[in-house]
Amino acid sequence: MGWQKAMLDKLAHTFQIRNKLLRQGLAECLGTLILVMFGCGAVAQMVLSEKSHGRFLSVNLAFGFAATLGILVCGQVSGGHLNPAVTFALCLLGREKWRKFPVYFLFQTIGAFLGAAIIFAEYHDAMYEYAGEKNELLVTGDKATAGIFATYPGPHLTILNGFFDQVIGTAALIVCILAIVDPYNNPIPQGLEAFTVGFSVLIIGLSMGFNSGYAINPARDFGPRLFTSMAGWGGEVFTNRQCWFLVPMFAPFLGSIIGVLVYQLMVGWHVEGEVRDNKNKAKEESLKLNDVTSKD
Amino acid sequence: MGWQKAMLDKLAHTFQIRNKLLRQGLAECLGTLILVMFGCGAVAQMVLSEKSHGRFLSVNLAFGFAATLGILVCGQVSGGHLNPAVTFALCLLGREKWRKFPVYFLFQTIGAFLGAAIIFAEYHDAMYEYAGEKNELLVTGDKATAGIFATYPGPHLTILNGFFDQVIGTAALIVCILAIVDPYNNPIPQGLEAFTVGFSVLIIGLSMGFNSGYAINPARDFGPRLFTSMAGWGGEVFTNRQCWFLVPMFAPFLGSIIGVLVYQLMVGWHVEGEVRDNKNKAKEESLKLNDVTSKD
Amino acid sequence: MGWQKAMLDKLAHTFQIRNKLLRQGLAECLGTLILVMFGCGAVAQMVLSEKSHGRFLSVNLAFGFAATLGILVCGQVSGGHLNPAVTFALCLLGREKWRKFPVYFLFQTIGAFLGAAIIFAEYHDAMYEYAGEKNELLVTGDKATAGIFATYPGPHLTILNGFFDQVIGTAALIVCILAIVDPYNNPIPQGLEAFTVGFSVLIIGLSMGFNSGYAINPARDFGPRLFTSMAGWGGEVFTNRQCWFLVPMFAPFLGSIIGVLVYQLMVGWHVEGEVRDNKNKAKEESLKLNDVTSKD
Amino acid sequence: MGWQKAMLDKLAHTFQIRNKLLRQGLAECLGTLILVMFGCGAVAQMVLSEKSHGRFLSVNLAFGFAATLGILVCGQVSGGHLNPAVTFALCLLGREKWRKFPVYFLFQTIGAFLGAAIIFAEYHDAMYEYAGEKNELLVTGDKATAGIFATYPGPHLTILNGFFDQVIGTAALIVCILAIVDPYNNPIPQGLEAFTVGFSVLIIGLSMGFNSGYAINPARDFGPRLFTSMAGWGGEVFTNRQCWFLVPMFAPFLGSIIGVLVYQLMVGWHVEGEVRDNKNKAKEESLKLNDVTSKD
Repeated sequence: MGWQKAMLDKLAHTFQIRNKLLRQGLAECLGTLILVMFGCGAVAQMVLSEKSHGRFLSVNLAFGFAATLGILVCGQVSGGHLNPAVTFALCLLGREKWRKFPVYFLFQTIGAFLGAAIIFAEYHDAMYEYAGEKNELLVTGDKATAGIFATYPGPHLTILNGFFDQVIGTAALIVCILAIVDPYNNPIPQGLEAFTVGFSVLIIGLSMGFNSGYAINPARDFGPRLFTSMAGWGGEVFTNRQCWFLVPMFAPFLGSIIGVLVYQLMVGWHVEGEVRDNKNKAKEESLKLNDVTSKD
Repeated sequence: MGWQKAMLDKLAHTFQIRNKLLRQGLAECLGTLILVMFGCGAVAQMVLSEKSHGRFLSVNLAFGFAATLGILVCGQVSGGHLNPAVTFALCLLGREKWRKFPVYFLFQTIGAFLGAAIIFAEYHDAMYEYAGEKNELLVTGDKATAGIFATYPGPHLTILNGFFDQVIGTAALIVCILAIVDPYNNPIPQGLEAFTVGFSVLIIGLSMGFNSGYAINPARDFGPRLFTSMAGWGGEVFTNRQCWFLVPMFAPFLGSIIGVLVYQLMVGWHVEGEVRDNKNKAKEESLKLNDVTSKD
Repeated sequence: MGWQKAMLDKLAHTFQIRNKLLRQGLAECLGTLILVMFGCGAVAQMVLSEKSHGRFLSVNLAFGFAATLGILVCGQVSGGHLNPAVTFALCLLGREKWRKFPVYFLFQTIGAFLGAAIIFAEYHDAMYEYAGEKNELLVTGDKATAGIFATYPGPHLTILNGFFDQVIGTAALIVCILAIVDPYNNPIPQGLEAFTVGFSVLIIGLSMGFNSGYAINPARDFGPRLFTSMAGWGGEVFTNRQCWFLVPMFAPFLGSIIGVLVYQLMVGWHVEGEVRDNKNKAKEESLKLNDVTSKD
Repeated sequence: MGWQKAMLDKLAHTFQIRNKLLRQGLAECLGTLILVMFGCGAVAQMVLSEKSHGRFLSVNLAFGFAATLGILVCGQVSGGHLNPAVTFALCLLGREKWRKFPVYFLFQTIGAFLGAAIIFAEYHDAMYEYAGEKNELLVTGDKATAGIFATYPGPHLTILNGFFDQVIGTAALIVCILAIVDPYNNPIPQGLEAFTVGFSVLIIGLSMGFNSGYAINPARDFGPRLFTSMAGWGGEVFTNRQCWFLVPMFAPFLGSIIGVLVYQLMVGWHVEGEVRDNKNKAKEESLKLNDVTSKD
């Protein structure tokens, strides 16, 4: 059908954005939206169904595969970080430019905000049904629903242990991601990176999710938290537990640094160095050969 | 064995269908049959065993991998849509011809109907055992079994929220599928599309399954519903909850439109445009080169 | 170390079997051993731990991935059938020679027998602990353990429905396997067949496992049953429920036939025919071209 | 940014280790650290949350995918054994040099020790909360937490059956791994080995995890056990149940030997022999051809 093709072409031309950084930002936004929509959606399903339609394992699976799908959607355009701590680690290693960092951070947070909004719309009725007669959206207590969107520490957790929890979780994530995308190590077939990162997120949830729900991502935590503060849960989402929200906001960056150091010290710089040594040797030999040839 | 080969050849010739659209319809029929047989089979196993042989997670896994297997069986022939909302989205983008839409819709619905019939046969004894002494097949109540086949809204759900539930779920599915099959984005190795679509279906079930059981597919919902109305559950399957059946019948198409728009606006048209820009630039340069060459 | 290499070479020469069919039989034996060892091991773990260390989902996952690993171990040598019903289907289609059928059936059954024996050794203490004070291995009742090894019908199941259960399950398996290995359809990258067959087995367990435990494999059911009759459960394993053991022994072959017919009628013969048509067309055109050329 | 690149280069040069065996040891150390951190982390989450945030299936999934990620991180450098029993099997077959064995064993044990330490830090608060008022870290009893790190036999298990449990589990693991990495069999696409080994570990947990928690790896068991003896659980971790710790320390090596024999006798030596036979035949024919040619 000619008119359909013409219209599609016109739409494609009209809406094409030529600024690369903006395009990358938009892609990160959609990717993080998908991560949070599916991930927080699974938490909502577990909480609101009182575990009849999902348990913690479902949440782990959802966040893992949500990371995979989010990366698949935007990876070719923006690299598929979905997480400022990942962008930060790649900037540290000089694989991304620093000016990308604030842009990605902003768009990742917007995406997370929108993902939370979609889940709020999706489970609007269920949330008020769960809230009970008073129709209140609560941050603490038996009927709390704020934990669907942002992370809150378990009752056993001190701020100090919570800080280490976020540092360790993010460092573990970064070590896995660096191994997966290391151009000198490349252990997996091209195109499977997204799946392997998804497995990493899944496993972090299986083994480090009990303390405070494994945010390990400032955008994934802050965006939805901002949404809840505006959608009816109020300022308590920020003030709760001595301003806990600052922990998943800043600790992940320290985790990034540690993850980069651990991977580079134990594997990365050695494989990189070996490749460099081999190149140098090849060069020297070709130089010697040249010497011999030129003597003749 | 000569006679066996001869007979197989004869059978192959006798039953070969040369009409391409009919062949594609048959393939879609078998694919959707597999989707519904395995998916609804898992619901039956959960319901009839009173959760001893399956929980909601098993249902999510079954629908996800059933989508994968259904696509694998028919994908090379028909594209493996298994869902009129997917066919609709691809028609919208001009990737499939509109005349395929009614044919696929019909055969997908027939496949879903047959898949439901097979599960009814498979669990015939268990269903009557579950129904209890009165031997009745019920649509509502504690001993309801209609929900094994078609979707029904949870008690907390209004029609409006239910409509949005189907729109959001289908839009999420379409965004994921478009990213997976986008020829300008192609993020995954060829041959893994079916697995990735399966993961998308799995994750939608993990995070958006609590409201009304994530039909997000008019054929998957209507075919089995029609079967139940004929197999003993009666007309109540259509009239229940103010004709709820219309929601999973029509809302997914609106979800398709939104999914197409979101993906194209945020990623699709930009990667497409970039490829076009690069081509044009290459053309211009070759023209300039020709100019230079022709001057000589 | 020279002597180690020499010894390994000597061992390799001494034990090398040059008869191809025998080698294939041994490989099938090991593959089926792995299938039954891991699969029945998971049932044992679920039953003996009274569901604290596994639920039905674990059993489904175990049988699925056990099929994958079994196929990987022996697939290059013997094709990795692990199931006489699969061998039968491939013989029906002329892809394997009929004389392989009895050999494979025998070795698959031996492998299943040995796999069951290993699980008996593995969980010897746990089984007698579970049996209680009387130290009896029982086929029926609350403390029955025979179901760890062979399949027994649920209390709700009639023989007729049980027969259909096995026919439907095997037919579903065969349709999936034929699609996966169809040389004219080939929907997945080479090397992933074993994983996809594993997913098929997993999903059949998720959706058709409640009636009688989805044997859908005469060797997997008969081998372990024979073992239990000898290891202390006695002849009751054969006589139980009107000789139920005959159902998973014979029904799967009927399922094979139906699965072959369904896949070939709905997809197989059409893709095969299309390839043949294209070849014939190409031939005709090259003949015409020859005509033209020879005229000159 | 020039200074960043300069600094990174300087760091890379400063920390590059040129001794290959040391580099491999470090890589094994990081890989085993990841295995134990994620695996024991999942046990901690299950135990400390009293199964609200994980069940045995989560532990199985975590150990399986932890093996995958551990192998991915270090596989290109060291082969990704993560397990002295695997190193032992490959040495037996002459695929690794024997002098690697003690080095790998040492570094794997150090990695496991460090992984346990990280989990202790991660769940420090939760562990003392779980311990109750007395603030004691216990090896036995209702509130025991030593089982988070090292394996302890179930109450039903005799030392003899426990010994067989470790032998059978390790043999099963080795058969799977040998099939996956056999250069004459190579059943899977390159780059998927790590995932398939992960599935093998997962399935061993699903089917052989009830007796004593499937250590099947001397380093994975001894490293964390040593850590617990130093971190507050005391010497009881060694003396418990007639020095149980010796079983997962030594039985796996016997399992390695049996696994190597089973795989080689039933599959390995035959595929190897076939390749050798084909080569010899090709050589002979080319010799004959040479004869013919030289006669001319």
